[in-house]
Amino acid sequence: MEQENNVFNNTSNGTTTTTTTNKNKNKKQNPLDPEEFRNHGHKLIDFIADYYSNITNYPVRSQAQPGELRCHLPVQAPISPEPIDSILHDINSFILPGLTHWLSPFHFAYFPSSASTAAFLGDLLCSGLNVIPFTWLSSPSATELESIVMDWLAKALALPSSFLFSSGTGGGVLQGTTCEAILCTMLAAREKTLILTGHHRASDLVVYSSDQAHSSFQKAAKIAGILPSNFRSLPTSSSTFFSFSPSLLRQTISEDLSSGLIPFFICATVGTTSSTAVDPIKELSLIAGEFNLWLHVDSAYAGSAAICPEFRHYFDGVDGASSLSLNAHKWLLTNLDCCCLWVKDQAALTSALSTDPEFLKNDASDSKDKNVVDYKDWQVALSRRFRAMKLWFVLRSHGISGIQSVIRGHVEMAMKFEGMVAGDRRFEVVVPRTFAMVCFRLLAPEGWPEEVNELNRRLLEGLNKSGRVCMSHAVVGGVYVIRFAIGATLTEQHHVDLAWRLVRRHADDLLGNVAGEEEKEVKENGNYNRG
Amino acid sequence: MEQENNVFNNTSNGTTTTTTTNKNKNKKQNPLDPEEFRNHGHKLIDFIADYYSNITNYPVRSQAQPGELRCHLPVQAPISPEPIDSILHDINSFILPGLTHWLSPFHFAYFPSSASTAAFLGDLLCSGLNVIPFTWLSSPSATELESIVMDWLAKALALPSSFLFSSGTGGGVLQGTTCEAILCTMLAAREKTLILTGHHRASDLVVYSSDQAHSSFQKAAKIAGILPSNFRSLPTSSSTFFSFSPSLLRQTISEDLSSGLIPFFICATVGTTSSTAVDPIKELSLIAGEFNLWLHVDSAYAGSAAICPEFRHYFDGVDGASSLSLNAHKWLLTNLDCCCLWVKDQAALTSALSTDPEFLKNDASDSKDKNVVDYKDWQVALSRRFRAMKLWFVLRSHGISGIQSVIRGHVEMAMKFEGMVAGDRRFEVVVPRTFAMVCFRLLAPEGWPEEVNELNRRLLEGLNKSGRVCMSHAVVGGVYVIRFAIGATLTEQHHVDLAWRLVRRHADDLLGNVAGEEEKEVKENGNYNRG
Repeated sequence: MEQENNVFNNTSNGTTTTTTTNKNKNKKQNPLDPEEFRNHGHKLIDFIADYYSNITNYPVRSQAQPGELRCHLPVQAPISPEPIDSILHDINSFILPGLTHWLSPFHFAYFPSSASTAAFLGDLLCSGLNVIPFTWLSSPSATELESIVMDWLAKALALPSSFLFSSGTGGGVLQGTTCEAILCTMLAAREKTLILTGHHRASDLVVYSSDQAHSSFQKAAKIAGILPSNFRSLPTSSSTFFSFSPSLLRQTISEDLSSGLIPFFICATVGTTSSTAVDPIKELSLIAGEFNLWLHVDSAYAGSAAICPEFRHYFDGVDGASSLSLNAHKWLLTNLDCCCLWVKDQAALTSALSTDPEFLKNDASDSKDKNVVDYKDWQVALSRRFRAMKLWFVLRSHGISGIQSVIRGHVEMAMKFEGMVAGDRRFEVVVPRTFAMVCFRLLAPEGWPEEVNELNRRLLEGLNKSGRVCMSHAVVGGVYVIRFAIGATLTEQHHVDLAWRLVRRHADDLLGNVAGEEEKEVKENGNYNRG
Repeated sequence: MEQENNVFNNTSNGTTTTTTTNKNKNKKQNPLDPEEFRNHGHKLIDFIADYYSNITNYPVRSQAQPGELRCHLPVQAPISPEPIDSILHDINSFILPGLTHWLSPFHFAYFPSSASTAAFLGDLLCSGLNVIPFTWLSSPSATELESIVMDWLAKALALPSSFLFSSGTGGGVLQGTTCEAILCTMLAAREKTLILTGHHRASDLVVYSSDQAHSSFQKAAKIAGILPSNFRSLPTSSSTFFSFSPSLLRQTISEDLSSGLIPFFICATVGTTSSTAVDPIKELSLIAGEFNLWLHVDSAYAGSAAICPEFRHYFDGVDGASSLSLNAHKWLLTNLDCCCLWVKDQAALTSALSTDPEFLKNDASDSKDKNVVDYKDWQVALSRRFRAMKLWFVLRSHGISGIQSVIRGHVEMAMKFEGMVAGDRRFEVVVPRTFAMVCFRLLAPEGWPEEVNELNRRLLEGLNKSGRVCMSHAVVGGVYVIRFAIGATLTEQHHVDLAWRLVRRHADDLLGNVAGEEEKEVKENGNYNRG
């Protein structure tokens, strides 16, 4: 190892970090002293509350340049302790201005990261209690709360009872992200299949999704060692609003079987990332049943909508799926990270993921009539956070009705936005809105010298560079669309209205003042070019 | 989907959960209203500070029976919002008593989950800001702080400069857990190897560790699709204190090569879980170099000790490793979860883990002379938390010197405990202590009718059932040992002293009063049976 560089220089970059005068030099304070915890905790709560109050003062999408932060911070950690006020000062000066503010009411990019006071409180307890429920015994009530809350949520979403612990064979687990959830279910399906075929057939395994599936599916397949040539990303088209074609799936599976390959896993999506497309779960589940494949339903974004009965029809047929996941941190008022995964067959999951090291052996886990859950065997990692606490806080603090009302509020705002877009003939809603996300674009006026995709790329970049809103894009069927996703908790109608005015103003600027002035005329003539 | 069950009954299990009177029925409060956040946040801070003050009032290891919590909670989520006081009441009544209290000063089990006010504050900001730095652009200063803090920590640990970003090719990333870290490096090594051999050779890949490696290594290999028959867990022995044998490794690799297999990955450990054994990194790294294999150093527990120069010799040779990981949540005062992973070759990691979906494309990531980090390509998942904040808080709040002093304090307490064990001839220190964990056991008096392993199993179970301490066990070289791991932040010398008195008292009870009274005599004669 290299030799220690003992004299670290705190101020080598001219920053504000200073060393405490350390009045209590002789009194060594415990790093978890309850009273210091209380004092500093209150300070931080106020800091964050103030941030929420002032959040619209920051550019939504960071205006930072690459490498900017390194110029402001020392090149090494301080030798001596620094006071909390120095740290908060630096956060105010250097960190906050360089963030992209996901909680800003003007953040409409990606899928929103929903957050709420209730979830925050639960997260705070999760961090504060700092228990590790990897086995039941290592923190029984933390494990049991997770199972209970997963049953609660499954009922609230009206999921089939086969996904509940009360079914005896199904159950739910909190993962960090969808990628982990898909990976775990794929490993369960892989193990189930290879036990029958022999592990030497691993390179013949084939997975299926539409070309609209999230990149997490591709990543999970890569990690699980599925050969790139056995990764089927089946084309979709605008005529079916980019949903997974059951007939194409059936045909592809049949061809693969004829070639001696082993189809074993299908990933369907309710609410795709690009355009919130909904795959036909019922038809796909029939095919999965027919060929005995594992069907996972990725409803990372839209799954939360099933808490409202009017959105449940999108999940018709889910009783034929083997597993389903959704990100409570996307649209269920829960801070990152919190991905809910339910499976019908616990045993398939745990037989693929369990390890049984001596140091974790205990009577409860080893008993013959095992009636405890060891969540370490439901996920990639051993250690895990007490995530159930935040989901429990959210469900109780808001109640089913409160969450329904938040989701409906977002959908309503998205409907209005869709209406505004449709009402301006310079723009187009590219695919019909399903939930709270609108895919739109600016149409190129006749004779416009550049590609319409490039025009929209410039429009989006201009909007984001303004710092006043943040949106993101997708390309569906070759068409570059601007995604306007409503779901940041602080967003209200007036933010949406302002965002739309901003889009129009930027379009004016982009098309040139003349074009802007020509707007009325254009509206009358409607000669916009969709090509 | 099943039909909605609209009338949820909150009080079906006779619990205390009540529905708010909902005075503000007509005023819809935003779920992230800053003032409500402030009020409830302060309440929670006090709740947790009180918990720390009273933590020793709880049984350390939960005394709960399987299924107990379900009896106390309703079978479904409430329809209407519930007030925070009801939730906190239930936490006090049902959750806290059912936890195993990892932060208790009497928690000596597994490896301690270190936590500190500083880390908690950082975690609180991570939850409160709720940004998602998956690409640089999606929150630049969050990404950059992570890179900076990983360089800071690498310097503080005196890691080779090739692991730093400043080297141009290396760098660090915060993962959740060691299993993820090992998995990611194994995938990097797998990809690097298969690109040369062709992906059809995947079933010939072989991985190596000693039989003392953490089960996470086995799990990572399973996930990565390494055939169980190609998983080499090489035996260790008490004569080398259970460390990895370089000669056995070399011999096994040679045999595998002769059999036409493809060795590609070695996992070495500094501070094994069972007995904190230290593998000879220098010799292992020479073998890795000779055969061109990826050597990962798992120092989940002991890596943090390298912040003290006197422990750095255990890491000699790490400059020959390809990657190293440690859990800051184990011994670096950081709340769960926070696993630090450094690699020498960023490109190997990202080429195995990157995906490039259209919706995340942006100028900074796509620029030819890319000078930003997109951490999504350094890990399994896409989404990720702003974990750097807590590590930064810890490094600044305590400074290098503060952290050194905490670690040295733990080691000192462990030394004293080791001395106390050694001073009582009824007991034995099974392997010499290296860091802050002592492996000991009770010896069976001559003629004792049961196996000494069973005697210790009963001793441990009795201690844990008392609720006054929590310890765990391991089996090394066939010997059942009680692991006494010091590292819970609140632990002070008097807690350790009390724990030892408790161990002796339980031993007295177990051996019978007579045996207890015979103690002096036995000490003189020393006729304890180690068999």
